[in-house]
Amino acid sequence: MAVYNKTRQKQMFVGKLDYDGDLLDQLTAICQKENISLGKVQAIGAVKKAKVGYYNQKTREYQLVEIDKNLEITNLSGNISLRDNKPMVHAHITLSDKDGNAFGGHLVQGTIVFACEFIIHIFAGPAYHRAHDENTGLPLWNI
Amino acid sequence: MAVYNKTRQKQMFVGKLDYDGDLLDQLTAICQKENISLGKVQAIGAVKKAKVGYYNQKTREYQLVEIDKNLEITNLSGNISLRDNKPMVHAHITLSDKDGNAFGGHLVQGTIVFACEFIIHIFAGPAYHRAHDENTGLPLWNI
Amino acid sequence: MAVYNKTRQKQMFVGKLDYDGDLLDQLTAICQKENISLGKVQAIGAVKKAKVGYYNQKTREYQLVEIDKNLEITNLSGNISLRDNKPMVHAHITLSDKDGNAFGGHLVQGTIVFACEFIIHIFAGPAYHRAHDENTGLPLWNI
Repeated sequence: MAVYNKTRQKQMFVGKLDYDGDLLDQLTAICQKENISLGKVQAIGAVKKAKVGYYNQKTREYQLVEIDKNLEITNLSGNISLRDNKPMVHAHITLSDKDGNAFGGHLVQGTIVFACEFIIHIFAGPAYHRAHDENTGLPLWNI
Repeated sequence: MAVYNKTRQKQMFVGKLDYDGDLLDQLTAICQKENISLGKVQAIGAVKKAKVGYYNQKTREYQLVEIDKNLEITNLSGNISLRDNKPMVHAHITLSDKDGNAFGGHLVQGTIVFACEFIIHIFAGPAYHRAHDENTGLPLWNI
Repeated sequence: MAVYNKTRQKQMFVGKLDYDGDLLDQLTAICQKENISLGKVQAIGAVKKAKVGYYNQKTREYQLVEIDKNLEITNLSGNISLRDNKPMVHAHITLSDKDGNAFGGHLVQGTIVFACEFIIHIFAGPAYHRAHDENTGLPLWNI
């Protein structure tokens, strides 16, 4: 069965990321500065280039895909929880190019912001910790 | 004119779905167990394979597309309302493959979870019921 | 550094857009009628045809892409703030076709609704105003 907890939404942060900074690093820095242990993040904008991960379910390793062109962020969806007791952003991103074709994957370092407007929602808790999951090899929520 | 009601957000459920289970069936089971008559759902994760619908606006029938490969869920966006007085999840999904190419459609049964982290928000109401819509042939909100 | 403000969520509007109307115009009309100065919008549905923008980061002009076919909206993500003191919707859209292939971009006028279920969240403020940004040439938040 699915596992989950009941919680509720608390305050939010709404703003824009720095031009030319790393997308994931900037989101992570905000969550660590604000000490967010449970929440979600969403964003739209544009990037100078993107780097995303695809989890190979057989080898259990992330394969990285570099998309070395300017792209729109049509959606960024992620959650915030704790890994090794520190706030961690787990985000997936959808992108589009000059012809309107879409791309995407698991957001990793190396995606460079052109412009990005984000909304971070903080949840009341309890804290969610990530730990190794046997079925997938991924650091999933240990709830 | 657009039709809509004012409402407000109540509690939330945050969790993960079962490995190897059906994505839509699991979300529906949670909404029915928790008796959610109005709300929204969002998720990220990965699937073993996907099955999505494309509504043919001329024939007014869903055409099904099977994507028989492992994929990332870059976004799942949906709402929860009542159909035949039972909680129903209406969700659309965006996916990406090993090359970063994106796919998507209306989520149907047959999309199998590898890992999936979801957030369900419950709204205060009023109840939204789906009923046949003349213009589209779809079960839209009768509000 | 990223810049942002703390805020909190207030009430919401949940509803459906008009068949055959312009997607962006309808969302904008709701936000102006309800006088929403800060918030977010999300939606799923289907369109008769789509028109999206791709911001050319070199020339600093939007290039428009017309996708003249029926499509699913797999995700619409946007925010609401003020431009020239009037509520403005900034939304990005992800779409999919009959083969499950995905497309997307910055939502502009010319995307025609077949069916669209939306959720608009209002935030408490402060007001966010858009103003010319030197780095990008875009009207970003002046916060």
